[in-house]
Amino acid sequence: MTDRTNWHDAPASVGDAISAIDTPALVIDLDAFEHNLRTVHSRVKDAKVALRAHGKAHKCPDIARIQVAAGAQGVCCQKASEAQVFVEAGITDVLITNEIVGVSKAERVARLARQARIGLCVDAPFHVAQIAHAARTAGSTVEIYIEIDVGQSRCGVHTIDQALELARLIAAEAPSLRFMGLHAYHGASQHIRDPAERSATVLASVDTVRTYIDALAAAGYACAVVTGGGTGTYDLVAASAVYTEVQPGSYVLMDRDYALNHLAPGEAELRQALYGLCTVISVSPTHAVLDGGLKTFAVDSGLPRMVLDGWTVKSISDEHTVITPSGDAPDLQVGDKVRLVPGHCDPTVNLHDWLIALRGQIVENVWPVSARGALF
Amino acid sequence: MTDRTNWHDAPASVGDAISAIDTPALVIDLDAFEHNLRTVHSRVKDAKVALRAHGKAHKCPDIARIQVAAGAQGVCCQKASEAQVFVEAGITDVLITNEIVGVSKAERVARLARQARIGLCVDAPFHVAQIAHAARTAGSTVEIYIEIDVGQSRCGVHTIDQALELARLIAAEAPSLRFMGLHAYHGASQHIRDPAERSATVLASVDTVRTYIDALAAAGYACAVVTGGGTGTYDLVAASAVYTEVQPGSYVLMDRDYALNHLAPGEAELRQALYGLCTVISVSPTHAVLDGGLKTFAVDSGLPRMVLDGWTVKSISDEHTVITPSGDAPDLQVGDKVRLVPGHCDPTVNLHDWLIALRGQIVENVWPVSARGALF
Repeated sequence: MTDRTNWHDAPASVGDAISAIDTPALVIDLDAFEHNLRTVHSRVKDAKVALRAHGKAHKCPDIARIQVAAGAQGVCCQKASEAQVFVEAGITDVLITNEIVGVSKAERVARLARQARIGLCVDAPFHVAQIAHAARTAGSTVEIYIEIDVGQSRCGVHTIDQALELARLIAAEAPSLRFMGLHAYHGASQHIRDPAERSATVLASVDTVRTYIDALAAAGYACAVVTGGGTGTYDLVAASAVYTEVQPGSYVLMDRDYALNHLAPGEAELRQALYGLCTVISVSPTHAVLDGGLKTFAVDSGLPRMVLDGWTVKSISDEHTVITPSGDAPDLQVGDKVRLVPGHCDPTVNLHDWLIALRGQIVENVWPVSARGALF
Repeated sequence: MTDRTNWHDAPASVGDAISAIDTPALVIDLDAFEHNLRTVHSRVKDAKVALRAHGKAHKCPDIARIQVAAGAQGVCCQKASEAQVFVEAGITDVLITNEIVGVSKAERVARLARQARIGLCVDAPFHVAQIAHAARTAGSTVEIYIEIDVGQSRCGVHTIDQALELARLIAAEAPSLRFMGLHAYHGASQHIRDPAERSATVLASVDTVRTYIDALAAAGYACAVVTGGGTGTYDLVAASAVYTEVQPGSYVLMDRDYALNHLAPGEAELRQALYGLCTVISVSPTHAVLDGGLKTFAVDSGLPRMVLDGWTVKSISDEHTVITPSGDAPDLQVGDKVRLVPGHCDPTVNLHDWLIALRGQIVENVWPVSARGALF
């Protein structure tokens, strides 16, 4: 176990011009970021539900603190190790919107619950027993949400009977565990392009959620919180009169995939705030080559998109992106810097140690992606 | 600039059983790793060319040292920041098989050249001027390779005249720069499935390379080194009588994409050595869910493949992989651990801080991925 290298130095300093940023880097347009923050927080506030910002999108305590200062109830994350980063950064209310399995993970969550409000999802008796044991040992109380599958076909219980059994098991573990309510998230619905179809999927989820709430209430288990919804559906979910909390994450950054959603009338337009900044390292008669590739941009939702008109991303490989010009494309020279819109913000941010926050052309802040690589 | 978090703790300790490894994690089957190392190094040695192991695949100084101990001339990498990690780990001969652009990058390379042999590629006068200035200032000598495009359509010069101009510019910068020869790599040819077609592509590249060598020699610029070839073509390139060095990287780890190549008669079979280890976190009547997703596996070359017969990867999202059973699939329970073959090893390793080296079922070593995220 040698050569443990710490983080790479930041690619820019506060006050730098864009031209001084080392590349490839991720930059944030703060004007767009703040527009998105104001827009989503005010609409959720008007709907009288809570907003719990999803930290899995940015993994960045500085952004989490801005979201809390702008009215977020707290943050969500997906991993025990992410929760630790946010709690150590002073976030006092963290919900892990996922099941965790592993003694060290459960022990970590139980320890964190001595310092902050910590929520965790379960969908099987195994999860309840594991976190109950850890919380008992740590002398803490962990807030438990039953995850229900509302059409995502991933985690979550599928029957009312399963939910009732879990509620009984959770109640039996008081005060180590406290039953809070339901986690009901439909990830795929975030990316349905047609607004009517997107709305229909959310309404179907809401109907399912309501049957669980009613059955649990009839058995004496009141759901204080029902949480779900993301950047593509937060306003529909907020208006449902069933959910008490929404969990948008990508909204502050945005990406190419979300930009492909069509908006319903009255739906708020969010602006692209996250960009990859790359340098042209090679130019040929047919193409130019950029210094960022698959280790700079996640491509699970498609290739990044060039911002500069006339140039198109042709291909991407480990360390390079090849771009090709149309007839009227401006010339590019070795050393020129260009911006690209990532295909999918969450796994793209996870490739980087730093986010460079720009006000116009000047670096206003340099934020570490402290939970990058927090897999456990 | 707060909350700068260091690396996440290692998911295992030496001597642990597989069952004790925290997940998701990357594990290496050391028997397969050593088989691949022996096989490729002995074949390259028999062909009387040098082997320079590509460190971009593993980003791990421990593996680089094993490769050098097994006869590698040194390592390749793609970034100045990767070169620094390898030099600081004691590797004394590093070739950056890429163009770099940026004053801080050139200064870093020039500084490293005071401690180790450092090679760098160029394909434009800009690159020569930039590294010459930095090397002059640092008082070091950087070894320069002209990159030629042999069909990859990425970086590299396209004409003999370009190469001659660069050779003149490099020679004029002695002793800060030393002209070494040619870098001629055809990335796409590594993954051509049909061996005859793969061979034809390599032979075409070799013909191109020969014309450059001859033209440069006629002008007084002898190519001491001609370097290229990867895991899919190293034996063809080694047998070319034109290349003096091959650069395989993936060969020690392997991945799903390389396994799809068909072998020519007599071509050595390499074994899968790299696996993702995941835990089942949720089970339903139709599927099971694993605790690693897009932040554990790069999917640019396809989804990871389950090792356990009867289970197939259905989909992957940020934090989850959903697997589905065939009729005779063994039962999986929450808490079970399963292995998957990543689609593409290089960007997958870049998602992880640690590689867990297994001898059979026991952790024999825990290696930091020290150059993970080294983008600059």
